[in-house]
Amino acid sequence: MRVDHIAIAVKNAENALGNYKKILKIDKIETEMVPNEKVKVVMMNLQDTRIELLEPMDDDSPISKFLRERGEGIHHIAITADEIETDVNRAKDGGMRFLGELRTGSYGRKITFIHPKSLNGVLVEFCQAPPTQ
Amino acid sequence: MRVDHIAIAVKNAENALGNYKKILKIDKIETEMVPNEKVKVVMMNLQDTRIELLEPMDDDSPISKFLRERGEGIHHIAITADEIETDVNRAKDGGMRFLGELRTGSYGRKITFIHPKSLNGVLVEFCQAPPTQ
Repeated sequence: MRVDHIAIAVKNAENALGNYKKILKIDKIETEMVPNEKVKVVMMNLQDTRIELLEPMDDDSPISKFLRERGEGIHHIAITADEIETDVNRAKDGGMRFLGELRTGSYGRKITFIHPKSLNGVLVEFCQAPPTQ
Repeated sequence: MRVDHIAIAVKNAENALGNYKKILKIDKIETEMVPNEKVKVVMMNLQDTRIELLEPMDDDSPISKFLRERGEGIHHIAITADEIETDVNRAKDGGMRFLGELRTGSYGRKITFIHPKSLNGVLVEFCQAPPTQ
């Protein structure tokens, strides 16, 4: 298991990228619009993990709600699961509360989220490890 | 550059560890008391990064203040710098605001912190990469 990415909610991803470029050595930057989630994603690839900037596409976006309630800051962390069905079942047996079912996210990977109440205030995305791992 | 660790402020590190064990496969767990920072640290080593749980040792701890103001949740992320003096100077030239000077942290590594106002609400620890990197 490893940290796949750390996601940060920001008002303006281009401005935030300008800030992060001042401290990070970024190998690759990818920008993606995700209409389903109403979010613009700017992914900063570092040596062995990724930091993503999430900018809301409109006022209905879940990221807009987060920004109104909490302000800019870390939105979630994503952890890779080696065998996601097994790992999800194990977590459910342990009493973890999930937000929705296992579903297909970007790059065709299976993902789900664990409620922050189950993990001491941290929203955790659980995603299938890429096949190359 | 890589993510050295993600730090989570919690009320009780042992209870939190019980939660995180339900979702993570942890290679090694280390517990350390850090009286200077008034914090108990439970470090969970994953495949290629670490997640640390920070429990305040008393009401004066910076973590107590964080918990009162924000509740449990992610406190900071730590990024390794390859040449920390150079990287700090570059960030300062870029207008990043630092919290204190470069200092020696746990395991004898040089560390410093960048103010969340400089990085869209995220407190970033900047630490020297270990020599094996």
